[in-house]
Amino acid sequence: MALITVGSMAFDAIETPFGKVDKIVGGAATYVAYAAANFVTPVQQVSIVGYDFPKEEMEELKRRGVQLDGVEIVADKKSFFWSGRYHEDMNSRDTLVTDLNVLADFNPKVPDSYQGSEYLMLGNLAPATQISVIKQMKKRPKLIAMDTMNFWMEIAMDDLKEVLTMVDILMVNDAEARQLTGQFSLVKAAKQILKMGPKFLVIKKGEHGALLFHEDSVFFAPALPLEEVFDPTGAGDTFAGGFMGHIAKTGDISFDNMKRAIIIGSAMASFCVEKFGATRLKELTRKDIDRRVEQFKELVNFEIELV
Amino acid sequence: MALITVGSMAFDAIETPFGKVDKIVGGAATYVAYAAANFVTPVQQVSIVGYDFPKEEMEELKRRGVQLDGVEIVADKKSFFWSGRYHEDMNSRDTLVTDLNVLADFNPKVPDSYQGSEYLMLGNLAPATQISVIKQMKKRPKLIAMDTMNFWMEIAMDDLKEVLTMVDILMVNDAEARQLTGQFSLVKAAKQILKMGPKFLVIKKGEHGALLFHEDSVFFAPALPLEEVFDPTGAGDTFAGGFMGHIAKTGDISFDNMKRAIIIGSAMASFCVEKFGATRLKELTRKDIDRRVEQFKELVNFEIELV
Repeated sequence: MALITVGSMAFDAIETPFGKVDKIVGGAATYVAYAAANFVTPVQQVSIVGYDFPKEEMEELKRRGVQLDGVEIVADKKSFFWSGRYHEDMNSRDTLVTDLNVLADFNPKVPDSYQGSEYLMLGNLAPATQISVIKQMKKRPKLIAMDTMNFWMEIAMDDLKEVLTMVDILMVNDAEARQLTGQFSLVKAAKQILKMGPKFLVIKKGEHGALLFHEDSVFFAPALPLEEVFDPTGAGDTFAGGFMGHIAKTGDISFDNMKRAIIIGSAMASFCVEKFGATRLKELTRKDIDRRVEQFKELVNFEIELV
Repeated sequence: MALITVGSMAFDAIETPFGKVDKIVGGAATYVAYAAANFVTPVQQVSIVGYDFPKEEMEELKRRGVQLDGVEIVADKKSFFWSGRYHEDMNSRDTLVTDLNVLADFNPKVPDSYQGSEYLMLGNLAPATQISVIKQMKKRPKLIAMDTMNFWMEIAMDDLKEVLTMVDILMVNDAEARQLTGQFSLVKAAKQILKMGPKFLVIKKGEHGALLFHEDSVFFAPALPLEEVFDPTGAGDTFAGGFMGHIAKTGDISFDNMKRAIIIGSAMASFCVEKFGATRLKELTRKDIDRRVEQFKELVNFEIELV
């Protein structure tokens, strides 16, 4: 039950009201891999890094069952670098620097050794790149999920519409769902998106939880109320990693199992925000994760017998 | 199992992106009564109105089991009037007019016929007024809940701190919880508020649901994702009415039953926002309410067996 994950591996500089870090490993595919590898191996990474990406990080990923055959290492360029500063509410941030570096030439190749994998997570990349990855799969995966962002809606809407017809799940945040459809109501936006291709839609609302839409059904998972959100960077990708990790582990793509996947994803994201970057994700034990999922059950569990 | 509810009965003028109404009956106690009377009677109203408050509204309330012995009618003054305009996101609004009128002299008197009632809901009023009502009760009610707002934190913080030591439940919105404590994190704010007196704290987050805190436990109820929020006016008071109505009906003040009360309150609030003012609340049947509560169960219900 392998999971292929396509996306950036990068360096981030992050400033939050609680602290600052000048250079820490980040990137969507990194977060997805660290989260998913708790549930399924191998995680088969497709990415690109520069000469400066730490060997130790590669070793750490491998140790956890992440395959790196699909990670291109460019000898004479630097890794993608992003720098941002969060506002006090932690829901909004300013991007200070975006140095694409190797990412500017990213032309992902799915290695032969990954062929036949049933689960595919397409991180936020140019829609044309996402299409190219899907087309490289000799057998269509059982489940394809994708992320995207407002930038592609502005410059590559036609490609975006095309890739939407090729995937099973779209995972976006509330602002992106609104921009994609021009609908302020998330329920209306969801109805429209489900007509654009995906059979499932996940709308991530950060500290306000996540919604799963499918046909006429909707499921809501809260975010865990935390004393402190230390650093939200990567929380959405960590969510995706937990979600797809659970689906790949169980091999069950029913709506009921996606509800569980959303809870698992939310649990993983709740860890991610506790420390800078992926630091917290690397410390987790199976027991930590089980305990956190139990907290989610307690958080929303109620019994009502209607009289 | 009577429920006493103290608060305003008023006229509102409301403008939303969906429409406009120049004069509609509103006021916290009105919403509380319409919501609560679905679950418990009598609802014993303590309020003040002017000569202009519609007799038919009074009759309608009575017909539903709302007692009005505690509602003072001032012959030569107008009822409280509030006017506001909602922004497109429906989470924020501008107050255009606040004419206190009769409310400026509101000195609530609990009628003898209300003595012995076990449940008391104190709407948003001057903390000194809330204290006066509690002191008028010859036997302390089994459960006292209160609302408040930022205005009282600014001009009557000492009184507010006093009334907080006298109640069991505080119901506020997220901004109010933050202002009351100076804590941005709602979890930290909750810890602090639970030390100020109330044993239970409900934080209302509008479209983002509601949190219930008690000792070290926390429970979360989502808001129902709606295609359209037509008019949010009164949703918080309707929530309080559903909550207290359920508690008074069942006579059970355990944490588990408060979880149910939060779901019932959220269900009632989800109706309130569908039409202007209390219009939708007046149309509801028992079946409508049961069906809505079922929707909440489906919305958050999941099963995870940890492996």
